[in-house]
Amino acid sequence: MVRGTLGLKTAEGMRDLLPRDLRRLEEMERRALDLFAQWSYQKVLTTGLEYGACVEPDITQSGTLYKFFDKEGQVLALRPEFTTPIARLVATRLKGEQLPLRLCYSGDVYRNTAIRHREFRQVGAELIGSEADLADAEIIALAIEMIHGLNVSDFRVSLGHMDVFSGLADELSLGEKLRADLEDGLARKDIVKMERVIAASGLPEKAAEFLRLLPHLTGGEDVLVKLDQYNTFKSVRRASESLRTIYRYLCDFGAEKNVLIDLGILRGFTYYTGIIFEGYVPQIGFPALEGGRYDKLYRDFGLKYPATGFAFNLEALLDVQQTEPRAESADVFVYGQSPGQVILRCQELRREGRKVEMALGYMSEGQARRRASSQRIPLVEKVEG
Amino acid sequence: MVRGTLGLKTAEGMRDLLPRDLRRLEEMERRALDLFAQWSYQKVLTTGLEYGACVEPDITQSGTLYKFFDKEGQVLALRPEFTTPIARLVATRLKGEQLPLRLCYSGDVYRNTAIRHREFRQVGAELIGSEADLADAEIIALAIEMIHGLNVSDFRVSLGHMDVFSGLADELSLGEKLRADLEDGLARKDIVKMERVIAASGLPEKAAEFLRLLPHLTGGEDVLVKLDQYNTFKSVRRASESLRTIYRYLCDFGAEKNVLIDLGILRGFTYYTGIIFEGYVPQIGFPALEGGRYDKLYRDFGLKYPATGFAFNLEALLDVQQTEPRAESADVFVYGQSPGQVILRCQELRREGRKVEMALGYMSEGQARRRASSQRIPLVEKVEG
Repeated sequence: MVRGTLGLKTAEGMRDLLPRDLRRLEEMERRALDLFAQWSYQKVLTTGLEYGACVEPDITQSGTLYKFFDKEGQVLALRPEFTTPIARLVATRLKGEQLPLRLCYSGDVYRNTAIRHREFRQVGAELIGSEADLADAEIIALAIEMIHGLNVSDFRVSLGHMDVFSGLADELSLGEKLRADLEDGLARKDIVKMERVIAASGLPEKAAEFLRLLPHLTGGEDVLVKLDQYNTFKSVRRASESLRTIYRYLCDFGAEKNVLIDLGILRGFTYYTGIIFEGYVPQIGFPALEGGRYDKLYRDFGLKYPATGFAFNLEALLDVQQTEPRAESADVFVYGQSPGQVILRCQELRREGRKVEMALGYMSEGQARRRASSQRIPLVEKVEG
Repeated sequence: MVRGTLGLKTAEGMRDLLPRDLRRLEEMERRALDLFAQWSYQKVLTTGLEYGACVEPDITQSGTLYKFFDKEGQVLALRPEFTTPIARLVATRLKGEQLPLRLCYSGDVYRNTAIRHREFRQVGAELIGSEADLADAEIIALAIEMIHGLNVSDFRVSLGHMDVFSGLADELSLGEKLRADLEDGLARKDIVKMERVIAASGLPEKAAEFLRLLPHLTGGEDVLVKLDQYNTFKSVRRASESLRTIYRYLCDFGAEKNVLIDLGILRGFTYYTGIIFEGYVPQIGFPALEGGRYDKLYRDFGLKYPATGFAFNLEALLDVQQTEPRAESADVFVYGQSPGQVILRCQELRREGRKVEMALGYMSEGQARRRASSQRIPLVEKVEG
């Protein structure tokens, strides 16, 4: 049946990958996964389709899910990420395994948003069952080493903490509207809006001062010294202690050169509870790396497991990364008069480990050379007989 | 937000893969893809979601598609296979490339049927732009060598031809009902039904005789001798000539031991035109291998490209294949009193290429040994200081 125009198009935001780009993507993926294995992370794969009941509660903008009804009338959704599906997996088939669990993944995720790619390859790691700051440091150091391994050197990972804003908002019992307004101002780094909201809020002076300062609290370990001045807030004290310990571990890992403390960052998934981080790569206008501690997520699945992890948008690098993948052309092109003889020779060369393209009919030497040249095959062999 | 029961379940027919099974699947996948590369096939990846307009026309039972509406009101479907999406890709981004094109793929496909797996990993290869029988032979020989490479030896690939039944039905101008009844009888190898339908059909004697014989035409090259007795039908003659040539090429490839001619086979996708084949692996009750020539498919996309290819359900092998994948445990477990020293030692070992699991807090020697043992890590190292 002849396809209409639509049958020739890729669906909005979806992507085909031609051999060269796919090789580049898979080469990056292999490097990341090899590193994860070296750090003792085991790869798992969760289902491509999830019940909406599993993944929906964690998405701030639930309109970004690709959702539909199955034949039984249940809502299904394409996986938008792996952290929640892995929690489901751990809470069912890995329940009772010795903790901590180190799991990693690589796969395509789907988000129905206006950004360029609605389908992209994500890799990531989860460290489940430890509340140690060292666990967070391991996850962040692993993410940083992974990005280095992808030949990206000039990148920055910003560290923040959920207790800095969300924890403080709880401690101050901020009203919903005020909280949302402040969060919005902070997310956009809209200083004017924040100032207006804080001025009208009637918050105690010390809290107002801290909130005004928040978007400016970025830098090295010195930021934590400034943070200490607000240690009268319990949530701020918790954040400060945790960030200081993790930062020092990151120095032990030799990872501090790529780390920036930025107390104004927020995260788009509702499950984060402790340290949060995001990483920017040059020329990519959104954080390719996202992660943090999410101690509450497993409670939703009936387990009291603390956890920390990260996800990295590998595909974003395709547009900015220049690494050449190894060539995938065949080594030799084989042709000749007798198909039987050509087949035998091809099989012989393949058994020797060569990559071989076989001519599918008789051709002249010129035709054979042109074919080989168009396919970047260095050798041409004619089989006599 | 606490998940209801549904949030803890995998969606109907979907599957999670734990580390061990995923490693086994990926090891098989790697072997298949390495072989495809050796035969000069280039890997591509098409979109996970397609417009229904692209994939729907080829599915005999269109109820098996996972379909939904996007925000613009268009029908989207999860890819049920790769052959049609690759035709779309070739007709757009690879249009004008020198033929033949050899492409291969590996990815998860989705079919909303009652069979056990509605989500499974498929690998396959497509040879596009050649109408030579040698192209069909290459594709079949490649499929057979791939299955051998997966350590499955006792399997059988049945060869049939669309001209044997469909071509003859066209030549005889069979009515729609008669054709459907015969096709159904043939698909189920229901001899009684076929006999009844043929008796009531009023078909010429020679045609009736041939149709009665069809379900029994299985075996080696001798089947083609029997087929020659019906050479007065043009379609039968075409099928016979093509099958004979391909069978002989398969002997040149050394692949005939796994080949059976079975003229009664039919295929579930509407795009097949020439030789068709299916392969059975012991203990799997459906054909894990499916393929054939599909010269009409590209016409639907505006190109006159003949093509041939196969798809293999790699995941079906997981249940019956016993190959052990290489171990993925870490080589050494490192613990000690000072996290800083432990971190330094882990980083040192990793730079030496070792797989290392790091303790996330202080533990006794006994605890360290128990942890290492539970993770099957052979070495335990205590860092002093």
